[in-house]
Amino acid sequence: MNPTPVHQDALPGWREGKAKRAILDFVRRVTQEGGSGFVPVKDRIAVFDNDGTLWCEYPMPVQLYFAADDARRQATSDPAMAGREPYRSLLANDLKAVGAQGKAAVLEIIRTTHSGMTTDEYDANVRDWAKAALHPKLNRPIRMVVYQPMLELLDYLRNNGFTPFIVSGGGADFMRVYAEELYGIPSYQVIGTTIKTHFALRDGKPILVIDPALDFYDDKAVKPVAIRHFIGRRPIACFGNSDGDREMMQWTTLGRTDGYPSLGLLVHHTDAEREFKYDREPVLSGRLDQGLDEADRHGWVLADMKNDWTTVFPEN
Amino acid sequence: MNPTPVHQDALPGWREGKAKRAILDFVRRVTQEGGSGFVPVKDRIAVFDNDGTLWCEYPMPVQLYFAADDARRQATSDPAMAGREPYRSLLANDLKAVGAQGKAAVLEIIRTTHSGMTTDEYDANVRDWAKAALHPKLNRPIRMVVYQPMLELLDYLRNNGFTPFIVSGGGADFMRVYAEELYGIPSYQVIGTTIKTHFALRDGKPILVIDPALDFYDDKAVKPVAIRHFIGRRPIACFGNSDGDREMMQWTTLGRTDGYPSLGLLVHHTDAEREFKYDREPVLSGRLDQGLDEADRHGWVLADMKNDWTTVFPEN
Repeated sequence: MNPTPVHQDALPGWREGKAKRAILDFVRRVTQEGGSGFVPVKDRIAVFDNDGTLWCEYPMPVQLYFAADDARRQATSDPAMAGREPYRSLLANDLKAVGAQGKAAVLEIIRTTHSGMTTDEYDANVRDWAKAALHPKLNRPIRMVVYQPMLELLDYLRNNGFTPFIVSGGGADFMRVYAEELYGIPSYQVIGTTIKTHFALRDGKPILVIDPALDFYDDKAVKPVAIRHFIGRRPIACFGNSDGDREMMQWTTLGRTDGYPSLGLLVHHTDAEREFKYDREPVLSGRLDQGLDEADRHGWVLADMKNDWTTVFPEN
Repeated sequence: MNPTPVHQDALPGWREGKAKRAILDFVRRVTQEGGSGFVPVKDRIAVFDNDGTLWCEYPMPVQLYFAADDARRQATSDPAMAGREPYRSLLANDLKAVGAQGKAAVLEIIRTTHSGMTTDEYDANVRDWAKAALHPKLNRPIRMVVYQPMLELLDYLRNNGFTPFIVSGGGADFMRVYAEELYGIPSYQVIGTTIKTHFALRDGKPILVIDPALDFYDDKAVKPVAIRHFIGRRPIACFGNSDGDREMMQWTTLGRTDGYPSLGLLVHHTDAEREFKYDREPVLSGRLDQGLDEADRHGWVLADMKNDWTTVFPEN
């Protein structure tokens, strides 16, 4: 632990205001030995949603860009696949035509790009893609669509003895390829949606093969269950941005039996100029609807991107 | 990290011999910077089976003693339950009669003691029980049936930059109640069998309720899959004692694609005097059969409890 000296601002990406004050007050309270809100280091668990909370998810999550690009890559070298829908439309860069084929087309693309291979092969695909990929709307490298204020927050919490976990609806295996480098979060602190996988020996060598079937979808009421199964402790701080994080926020902040203080914070996408402005309406991104209605009642802090953040993305 | 000074024996519970030498050589190799076998700290993942590897599982795993005691406790204050089998036999301490009712009776006892309550209630039950319980055959407190040489090994690995995980067929929630205190392993480094659980609001307060259904059974070929889903990295060291650990041993030691050295070690229960002597025959404990046949071929180290350990249990 390496607490930031008092005279230094640990969160320069956060403008003075209600959200920043709530974070600083909470951390001061739980770290003050002998204070009524003190929480031992082992119980300083913080959970973070990923898409829309730690990095951009608009107009659609990064993982879907990977899926589209990877399916295009596979189809390019496979004539049979290239002639079949939805790949034919995808190769023609006609995303509208893909969309018109409905959810089945999206699931088919996810199946092709996220299963039917070993875990080593999948990881290599994501790694190769992440090196060069650009976010098509922000025109920034994928690794540069993370939120600078949230990176500072992660460091600040770690420096105050917190152990951060990602608890996301995104694919655990997908996130793990970059979570360590981007967020400093090791693979075993990344919880997400998983795909059924089986062990096999191929030529006497063990492999793990990803099967075309969902294992569990880590969203909404499943998030507190995933926290129980993976972390085994109740977090004292929760950071989200959509109604998919609602139950995880409830589990962190309401009716605690251990008397610990807690903090719940929702990133509110209010910045049409530096990022995107959305809350109740999205289809492919996280919708923040119930959370907006309930935040006040439950004492959840809304971080207003436009007003609370001095900067959105890292400079380099 | 706090490497043990060269002149000091980090593993006094291990007698000089093949097993101890294999451990020391492996750790020296992966920690030697610039050496051909060097492994960065982030990849120094070690996985440990629990029952029979870190603590005694003979004649049956500790968790089954908890289940029997807890069912007895519940039945004592519930006349309807007390009159019903298998609880009537259990209350009469007639374990033979329980056994004669077959697997269904055991599953019924597990259902009653491991589901139908909140996670808080379950944890409290285990915690209360663990305080006073005695191992009936060893006549030692439950927390004292851990293996002293393995505690030393855990410390030794941690001091050399390893992150240890438990990967056990035992219940994750059961182990987590004591894993931190006994082994110094935090809850989120404990992987085990999980039971279906759902989130709910009761009087506006969030709870997690354990349902009477298995989620996944973390044994045999499921262990490498659990390692993938929970840890997200391939371990370089694996410690087990039974054929339930076979695939995890294979996944750790055979056909690695990253060029890292690896270590596989099986605790062989050879000590009828200080603990128990068993390998190919047990029914309720871990059977070591294929592992014995394959150890030589795969370079897995057998730790012979009788000859390799100077001591078995902690003194106090």
